[in-house]
Amino acid sequence: MKTTTILKQEFLDRIEAFQTSIKAEGLDACLVHANEADMANVRYLTEYWPTFESAAVFVPADGEAVLLIGPESENYAAQRSVLTNIEKMIEYRESAEPEYPGINVSTYEDIVDKYTQNGVKKLGIVGWAVTPIPVYLSLKKQLPEVELIKADDIFMPLRYIKSNDELESMRKAYSISEKAIEAILNDIKPGMTELEVIGIAQREIYYNGGEYEGHSLYCFCGSATNNAISRPTHNKIVKNEVIQLNIGARVSGYSSSVGLPISIGPLPERKKRLIEFGLEAHLKTMDLLYAGKPAADVVKEYESWVKSKGFYKHMLYGPCHAIGMMEVERPWMESVSDYKLQTNMTFQIDTFFYDNDFGLRWENGVAVTDDGIEKLSSKFTKIVEL
Amino acid sequence: MKTTTILKQEFLDRIEAFQTSIKAEGLDACLVHANEADMANVRYLTEYWPTFESAAVFVPADGEAVLLIGPESENYAAQRSVLTNIEKMIEYRESAEPEYPGINVSTYEDIVDKYTQNGVKKLGIVGWAVTPIPVYLSLKKQLPEVELIKADDIFMPLRYIKSNDELESMRKAYSISEKAIEAILNDIKPGMTELEVIGIAQREIYYNGGEYEGHSLYCFCGSATNNAISRPTHNKIVKNEVIQLNIGARVSGYSSSVGLPISIGPLPERKKRLIEFGLEAHLKTMDLLYAGKPAADVVKEYESWVKSKGFYKHMLYGPCHAIGMMEVERPWMESVSDYKLQTNMTFQIDTFFYDNDFGLRWENGVAVTDDGIEKLSSKFTKIVEL
Repeated sequence: MKTTTILKQEFLDRIEAFQTSIKAEGLDACLVHANEADMANVRYLTEYWPTFESAAVFVPADGEAVLLIGPESENYAAQRSVLTNIEKMIEYRESAEPEYPGINVSTYEDIVDKYTQNGVKKLGIVGWAVTPIPVYLSLKKQLPEVELIKADDIFMPLRYIKSNDELESMRKAYSISEKAIEAILNDIKPGMTELEVIGIAQREIYYNGGEYEGHSLYCFCGSATNNAISRPTHNKIVKNEVIQLNIGARVSGYSSSVGLPISIGPLPERKKRLIEFGLEAHLKTMDLLYAGKPAADVVKEYESWVKSKGFYKHMLYGPCHAIGMMEVERPWMESVSDYKLQTNMTFQIDTFFYDNDFGLRWENGVAVTDDGIEKLSSKFTKIVEL
Repeated sequence: MKTTTILKQEFLDRIEAFQTSIKAEGLDACLVHANEADMANVRYLTEYWPTFESAAVFVPADGEAVLLIGPESENYAAQRSVLTNIEKMIEYRESAEPEYPGINVSTYEDIVDKYTQNGVKKLGIVGWAVTPIPVYLSLKKQLPEVELIKADDIFMPLRYIKSNDELESMRKAYSISEKAIEAILNDIKPGMTELEVIGIAQREIYYNGGEYEGHSLYCFCGSATNNAISRPTHNKIVKNEVIQLNIGARVSGYSSSVGLPISIGPLPERKKRLIEFGLEAHLKTMDLLYAGKPAADVVKEYESWVKSKGFYKHMLYGPCHAIGMMEVERPWMESVSDYKLQTNMTFQIDTFFYDNDFGLRWENGVAVTDDGIEKLSSKFTKIVEL
């Protein structure tokens, strides 16, 4: 199946690096969970991306890892997964909970017996926030002596630093997102619905070689632009209003997002001024990023700069979060962050300002370099008034 | 926000009906969970559809229900939710687990104090299969005396029988899916990738008034057609091979799916014969459905008919599952099913046959009527050889 340009060896190297972390942490194994929307952890290790069902990877400290799938994905997983050890389990069935009379499935006891030499006393759980109750209770019941430990902290750092092939996938994803925005700027008309605008982006993502949206795509017009998170609606695009676009293509599992506020016809001066300031803040953030910089300092310097300019009350959010397989992934940049930026970490510069009746968001991606950044997208850092 | 044609009163009636079930079951309240991919339970009660974050609805046996959201969705939820009681909680944050320094959130203790008169002893959990560990452990910790009970069985039946407005949404969704397939049949060419074909469908879904895909869309060519579940790839469409299309638009929250195998140029006789038999089995299933029919009998009669025709070894799956907000939802039709079909239940007739090197799936939707079915889609029940 032609689904990724990441080589098989890179997946195997990831599993080996993870096993080193598992051992260093004193765990006997980890169970790595993903679902349809939050597929990154499992795809990162196996290239498998569940649909309808969920999935997990059982990674023993020593020995072979195994992909755990739902009862209906046997052929699909066999064709897509880098791992050839695959087991069907009822815990990863569809949320409609079919009973599958007559289908043979494995249990967690079976997995531990088959894939570890000395059993498991301490089991790390990765993807803790998306691991559902049935998995948790089956583990408790089938492996009552086993200690379950949230282990995202030993897995996620493997995903922080991107390889050359990961960066190449992200460059392509950002380039497709830019093409989709160009198409929107050509085709958008007053009277279209926000969702019709999203259709233009979807068309371009697949036409240009994307595999899916990298996040749920945004087109909001008018007051909905002050939503930090939202979904497009059947509301119509109107002239002389802020129209917020955030478009992200996905390539080989890697997300991108390019965001900008536009208008059809001129905006009132007050709105235009905040959009211009947002762009200034967006570009300012780029200057704060380089390898070795403490993440918390980026946030503090950004916030104090915004304060000095008098716009702090309009700031909801920002300035950056990591991007990779998920459009939003760890590490966040927050004032409480305790890490330093490193070369080949990838961040989304996500600059959000708002007023009572509107908001705006500039978004572009960057990879950290030794002395600054490589821009993964850069075509849309100007005010666009159609 | 223009997001649905379902009226506010219908949402309020749903909550009232659910409260009747909660009381009948002897529960004090229910917590109804949803995530980005599995949004149905929360959207059914509130019209709110989370993105990036997850969400829940706390429904006390008496009194007002409350929507529980993540820290970033406040404005979005206020504009979209039918419920005006909305509380932010850390348990519904993004899976990247930002810490949100300085943001105020509520706890489950707060919710019980504020929205119940006499507290909660028995709490039903709906959406058990998609409720993640952090919710479960917070409930255990904050409400240690409360008994947690899986309660999907008292909620899901509310969704079985569709109202007139729900049926109207589904008719529109199926009609858009048929338009998307027409567009594919016009535009598909050898050399396109499977994903490029999906782009045609995405374009048409939004152009014709859909709000999203109703399920992850399928276009598979060649050997991948024997996957019951799969995802489209960058593999190329070739002539004289089975090409499987399953296209579903979503309207007002309601899913649809229309599926058929096609080919560009003639197929070998063996493959064509199984496709023809699949179509015969698909149409045969329609004759088995009417109000009052025991679901298990449909399965048994279908399977015994397939056996009598000598094709049982090619049957993976079928013949039906319910469809509504989710493309696959309860109730399934399995040999162990213990319910009877009722008027205005909606089912997906999902007819899958396979051989070693290919598979095929015919899919159309129906609503059960007193004496048979209303076809929600019917344009593609003929062999298509382009």
